[in-house]
Amino acid sequence: MSKVAILLSGCGVYDGAEIHESVLTMLALSQRGVAYQCFAPDLLQLHVINHRTGEVAEGEQRNVLVEAARIARGDILPISELDPAEYSALFVPGGFGAAKNLCDFAVNGKNCEIQPQVMEVCQAFANSGKPAGYMCIAPALAARVYGQQVKLTIGNDPATADALVAMDATHVSCQVQDIVVDESRKLVTTPAYMLAQNIAEAAVGINKLVDKVLSLV
Amino acid sequence: MSKVAILLSGCGVYDGAEIHESVLTMLALSQRGVAYQCFAPDLLQLHVINHRTGEVAEGEQRNVLVEAARIARGDILPISELDPAEYSALFVPGGFGAAKNLCDFAVNGKNCEIQPQVMEVCQAFANSGKPAGYMCIAPALAARVYGQQVKLTIGNDPATADALVAMDATHVSCQVQDIVVDESRKLVTTPAYMLAQNIAEAAVGINKLVDKVLSLV
Repeated sequence: MSKVAILLSGCGVYDGAEIHESVLTMLALSQRGVAYQCFAPDLLQLHVINHRTGEVAEGEQRNVLVEAARIARGDILPISELDPAEYSALFVPGGFGAAKNLCDFAVNGKNCEIQPQVMEVCQAFANSGKPAGYMCIAPALAARVYGQQVKLTIGNDPATADALVAMDATHVSCQVQDIVVDESRKLVTTPAYMLAQNIAEAAVGINKLVDKVLSLV
Repeated sequence: MSKVAILLSGCGVYDGAEIHESVLTMLALSQRGVAYQCFAPDLLQLHVINHRTGEVAEGEQRNVLVEAARIARGDILPISELDPAEYSALFVPGGFGAAKNLCDFAVNGKNCEIQPQVMEVCQAFANSGKPAGYMCIAPALAARVYGQQVKLTIGNDPATADALVAMDATHVSCQVQDIVVDESRKLVTTPAYMLAQNIAEAAVGINKLVDKVLSLV
């Protein structure tokens, strides 16, 4: 198997990639002997959230790629350098960054648009029949990328599920320790911190997701 | 067992807490059913490093507690609210933040001083015979806190080991998948990313460290 790609969206649950989900993905891959390369778009975050208070840090700006480099320990490339032909599979951890920086789902819901470079890459994996694993809120991206009643989950939140159905996905309720698989599209999703009460719970679903995606390569 | 405390030093290997080590500690505790509370000092970081380029972000300032809140998903308290009587053990992940924000070892080496609130808390755990686990470069703090030839490791880097010996510690060379234990002082250390080539390697040593610390409670 060639390397797999991990697409990050910043560094921190409220304005970037969810750190635990990102690290758990890397850990599961590393423990299975699978090499990965991290990527992120080189653009400004929608905003910066003070993660202690939950409030917007007015006037502050941070770059998605530069912040995501923190989770990747500096070993990261801009998404413009991601050639899907070189990678066996794609992983997209959640966190609000997936819904704020990779697309505008957090603002526009079912009418969201995906950042063009992100759309191009995600579609390339989908259209070439390469497997992908989307976690937490990232399946909002997958709904737009795959459409055509693709089966996926964001857990069990009715409003979010309705938005994904409006984007032509088929939403399947799912518990935190489980995954939803669309075998024909090779898309695997898990609720992670949409439902997890602690990191050990998130790890169970993410480990299953990683195993399933790798089995589909 | 009551909760254990995790002391963070920011968010990112080059200017804060090492993210993987911090998350691996949380995961190991959560998987063993042990509740934890994160803490960090409420002060400015020594500096901000752009983790993509490795260079100082001139003019930028970030707060250690606010950034550490990203790893803790917002559930964090200032170290001023850490009452050691309420916690069974202390964990200190590494990253340059441990040597730049919790003390000035990165600048002053063997002549380093520990931030006063950090010193007070670490000494309280040491003096009350409660176990502690220090990872990666964080044993530089432990050398100053424990002294008296306390046994510890930062892996096998000669210059760093010499500095710790000059601070009255006994340095023991150690491989990434192992730990060094000072049974009488209840101090456990592991090299983690001082030596780890990947996150799975770091996890082996950190899991052993967590198991040993919990066994000493």
